[in-house]
Amino acid sequence: MVLAVALVQGASRGLGLEFCKHILRNKSPAAAVIATCRAPEGASELMGLAAQYPGKVTVLKVDVNREDEIKGAAEEVRQRFGKVDLIINASAMLHPSGKGETSLRDVSAQGIISTLTTNTVGPLMMAKYFAPLLLRGGGCFGLQPPEKAKLHSGIIVNITAKVGSIGDNGLGGWYSYRMSKAALNMATRNLSIELARSRPKVVCVSLHPGTVNTDLSQPYHRNVPKDKLFSTEHSVNLMMSIIDKLNIEKTGKAYNWDGTELPW
Amino acid sequence: MVLAVALVQGASRGLGLEFCKHILRNKSPAAAVIATCRAPEGASELMGLAAQYPGKVTVLKVDVNREDEIKGAAEEVRQRFGKVDLIINASAMLHPSGKGETSLRDVSAQGIISTLTTNTVGPLMMAKYFAPLLLRGGGCFGLQPPEKAKLHSGIIVNITAKVGSIGDNGLGGWYSYRMSKAALNMATRNLSIELARSRPKVVCVSLHPGTVNTDLSQPYHRNVPKDKLFSTEHSVNLMMSIIDKLNIEKTGKAYNWDGTELPW
Repeated sequence: MVLAVALVQGASRGLGLEFCKHILRNKSPAAAVIATCRAPEGASELMGLAAQYPGKVTVLKVDVNREDEIKGAAEEVRQRFGKVDLIINASAMLHPSGKGETSLRDVSAQGIISTLTTNTVGPLMMAKYFAPLLLRGGGCFGLQPPEKAKLHSGIIVNITAKVGSIGDNGLGGWYSYRMSKAALNMATRNLSIELARSRPKVVCVSLHPGTVNTDLSQPYHRNVPKDKLFSTEHSVNLMMSIIDKLNIEKTGKAYNWDGTELPW
Repeated sequence: MVLAVALVQGASRGLGLEFCKHILRNKSPAAAVIATCRAPEGASELMGLAAQYPGKVTVLKVDVNREDEIKGAAEEVRQRFGKVDLIINASAMLHPSGKGETSLRDVSAQGIISTLTTNTVGPLMMAKYFAPLLLRGGGCFGLQPPEKAKLHSGIIVNITAKVGSIGDNGLGGWYSYRMSKAALNMATRNLSIELARSRPKVVCVSLHPGTVNTDLSQPYHRNVPKDKLFSTEHSVNLMMSIIDKLNIEKTGKAYNWDGTELPW
């Protein structure tokens, strides 16, 4: 049996935790999940999940703001698994204050830099250190095309946001978050180009999870119609059904939760 | 006579210096130029220009990585001029090493963060502290429309780059620079929305100067066909003819040197 290896970055709660649950529920025992988070010791839900699936979950401490921790995690994964088939970059912050800026008055250099570092630089550094392992993946996620030249070995999913679409931006505000996700989309695009030059290839996409009931969006729930506020489970179900159909033809784009393409 | 006040950020060399020259040559004596740069003491060309136009050039020390210096400059401009009609954010770096990353191997967290801080956060912080002065501008640049409700008081120009267009990105590489310009384009879009809510309004656009013969692009000149490598003078002529026609209908977009719209 080929073991599918999925790494979820930002797995202690919200969408990241839900991705771990989904993969374990639907792919175990054929899958192993590597769950990274800043503070495993405080991640009680994740630890509970790991106990529920003995031997299937590897929890690693990774603060994406720390290049040394990302590098160390990649080395550990290399030794234990020798490959990765799927990476999901799930961690993100709206702003260090917990609230997006409503106007220029709220914008600070430190706030933007922190948000960019976590939401944008972090996922790119994950890609840097895990790309060699993705290139050695078995292509266990997505839907392989018949042509051998188009096979992929791995997939990178960067969780973006519709508000990170420049073309779709009609309301403004949320400077740091929007800018971080626009830059992340550029990273997705660049990664998709670089990692499609190899054979087999690595697919890279941005996914918009919808407005999800998580800590990040919590201050804004009252403005969201009930049928547009997704549970993490519903959102992850939708995103996984996109991931299950990914191949190299679909790389380098940003997709909504319903599979439609998001404008840049 | 109404004095048009233009501020050029990153004015010691390259496009910034050329914008100062252009405005002084074409708008003096009806214009004052505020030229900011990190190290005025070493900016010999700019100092020479200031001497050539006595009383017309105010040189201020602004490192866009230092919020306190931006704030201080805005206070000084407020006291001396009480308004600004045009701000051009011209300073940028390709990467701290002077070379764009050709692959993931060259990517470092520190390199990206430095590039984002200078190219993206800097221009946004300029907008934050100078927006009150732009809102008090006289609309001396651009082309005012006949409708009073559409008048603009000021213009912000962020110098972007075609390689900062996510949709246009077919080659990859230059991670830091591309990501910084994509995020800057989002800042442009956000600013255009927030600053169009006032009356009079402030216009904000991103402009792509073409591939210009400057220090930034110098390592890449051998790959550029001669007729596509613009002198700073030619590029600034082209961009100023776009600026001269800007109004609120054209806000919130990215334009090529020839006036065509750049995809996000």
